[in-house]
Amino acid sequence: MILTVTLNAALDVTYRVDQLRPHETHRVRAVGSRPGGKGVNVAAVLRALNESAIATGLVGGPTGRQIRIGLAAAGIPDAFVRIGAESRRTLVVADDRDATGFWEPGPTVRPEEWVEFLRRYRGLAKAARVVVLAGSLPAGVPADAYGQLVEIAREFDTLSIVDAEGPALLAALRAGPDVIKPNAHELSLLNTGLPDRPAGRGPGRDGVGNRGAGGGPGGPGGTPGGHPVAAARRCGARAVVASLGADGIVATTPDGDWRVPVPERLTGNPTGAGDAVVAALAHGLAYRLGWPETLVNAVALAGAAVLAPVAGAVDLPSYFRLRRAARAEPWRAPPSREGI
Amino acid sequence: MILTVTLNAALDVTYRVDQLRPHETHRVRAVGSRPGGKGVNVAAVLRALNESAIATGLVGGPTGRQIRIGLAAAGIPDAFVRIGAESRRTLVVADDRDATGFWEPGPTVRPEEWVEFLRRYRGLAKAARVVVLAGSLPAGVPADAYGQLVEIAREFDTLSIVDAEGPALLAALRAGPDVIKPNAHELSLLNTGLPDRPAGRGPGRDGVGNRGAGGGPGGPGGTPGGHPVAAARRCGARAVVASLGADGIVATTPDGDWRVPVPERLTGNPTGAGDAVVAALAHGLAYRLGWPETLVNAVALAGAAVLAPVAGAVDLPSYFRLRRAARAEPWRAPPSREGI
Repeated sequence: MILTVTLNAALDVTYRVDQLRPHETHRVRAVGSRPGGKGVNVAAVLRALNESAIATGLVGGPTGRQIRIGLAAAGIPDAFVRIGAESRRTLVVADDRDATGFWEPGPTVRPEEWVEFLRRYRGLAKAARVVVLAGSLPAGVPADAYGQLVEIAREFDTLSIVDAEGPALLAALRAGPDVIKPNAHELSLLNTGLPDRPAGRGPGRDGVGNRGAGGGPGGPGGTPGGHPVAAARRCGARAVVASLGADGIVATTPDGDWRVPVPERLTGNPTGAGDAVVAALAHGLAYRLGWPETLVNAVALAGAAVLAPVAGAVDLPSYFRLRRAARAEPWRAPPSREGI
Repeated sequence: MILTVTLNAALDVTYRVDQLRPHETHRVRAVGSRPGGKGVNVAAVLRALNESAIATGLVGGPTGRQIRIGLAAAGIPDAFVRIGAESRRTLVVADDRDATGFWEPGPTVRPEEWVEFLRRYRGLAKAARVVVLAGSLPAGVPADAYGQLVEIAREFDTLSIVDAEGPALLAALRAGPDVIKPNAHELSLLNTGLPDRPAGRGPGRDGVGNRGAGGGPGGPGGTPGGHPVAAARRCGARAVVASLGADGIVATTPDGDWRVPVPERLTGNPTGAGDAVVAALAHGLAYRLGWPETLVNAVALAGAAVLAPVAGAVDLPSYFRLRRAARAEPWRAPPSREGI
């Protein structure tokens, strides 16, 4: 079983209007809504693959109820914990030309609600093969929330995937997750902005996590040129899988360093492609598929998400076609500038 | 008791953003929400005046539940009937310069839900002194919904006020409501676009309703120059109270024709000023205050609404100040062009 965690779940709402004109009034032609947040999207993609995934996290208020109604309608098993504050909405106003987004601030979680969530999570993580920790942290949750959740997963030999950014990601890294999935931006931050860490700290369960000692700009392993291998050596995760959009995926894993180009030129909606990558990683870890096959699946599933209209959906025929066409190539790193 | 009817109730949501930029993504700084729709706003103003008003109408879905939670929080007695479809939201995105509105389409009401509402309304209208029928009609409700509700009120000698536009207003007029409150735009439509009606039709309970026979453009009473007296003579309502924004109120009533200028120059938020006028009219009818006093209250309450930040709120000190300063003047109609 795969468990996805969405601490800042959302109701993703779409308004269709003729043309967005600031400071005028618009008649909304159609309203759409679906449960969202990265972990929920991952669970939705896994559901599309007939994979058993349970979604947990925090939801509250009338919007939280709407999220749960949407989960039930989508056939996603719902193990969310209810909080007092209202879950957020993300609103996308789509006109003939493009989309305009409005991101509500999330709820503030009370300490006792976080304790209740940890209790629920512990039971679920024990039964899971893989936990996916994805998306932003709501206010009130500890800054090292993902670190705590990674550590609990490890107690049960449950594998962990973290898809987060900023301080939430850094805190997770200190606990040594099995996989992180930064995008190009987060990756460059990791390569340049990681705080100094003492050599040998972190779990380094397979020898990948901590190869380069030190770190940080100007440190012994600093300024490594921005490719994911360098980040992985320094950051404390077993594997780093970076999605680079149209350039496909690069990854450093216990089975070597890989690159999987996108086998076709795809045009569509890139929202949710990253969540599809994470779904493929969770699937691959759960079934021990091996990294090359898992990464090929990830590129194919991301492409199938680009070709589907909304986040959390995938175009299955495209998935099968792209999966046949994609190839994992051993990564050749550019000449290292370390030590120069 | 005053009963307000809001068939197309809404949750009025406000997003505060730094600056609205089409086709970009915005972090919403603050989210506000309150129950809305004209009848609900009228009930909220009456509540601010410590007036006992009951709010009824139709609400549904999670948004309907949020409307009811908001009514309870505002201390407004809630006699709404639940429907299956989801109530609408109105979203206002406010940035540093101005507001941008997004009006969701309302729910579609099922025939049996309308029947259930009529049953509920009949019981409430019997107990009320005044019913306020305000705002748009949702899909699925009969086009002459307000006409039906006016007629039911009359069965119990309950007075009726209609604040509507377009076909909903015209259908209400055929039933002879006690008061209508068109704004300047609706008034000009009434003066030019009213269909021909046979003389003597309609209730004309006090002789005001039907004075001018005929009507319609080019008819014997046509093109009367756009002042409310002419409209009232033709339309079938006992009284017409027109709010003309900064120009105050003009009215034709069984006690004569009146004009009440705004006694101060006011700057603020005009949203909800019309609802405050209706609240004052309902209050005046319920306590038989007489038209001059009622109209003075209406101008003062509308001004107090302009000076309050949101629809449904009034600034009470301003209300008392404006009420002392405002005067009802007998209306001198411009030279009639009838018969020329």
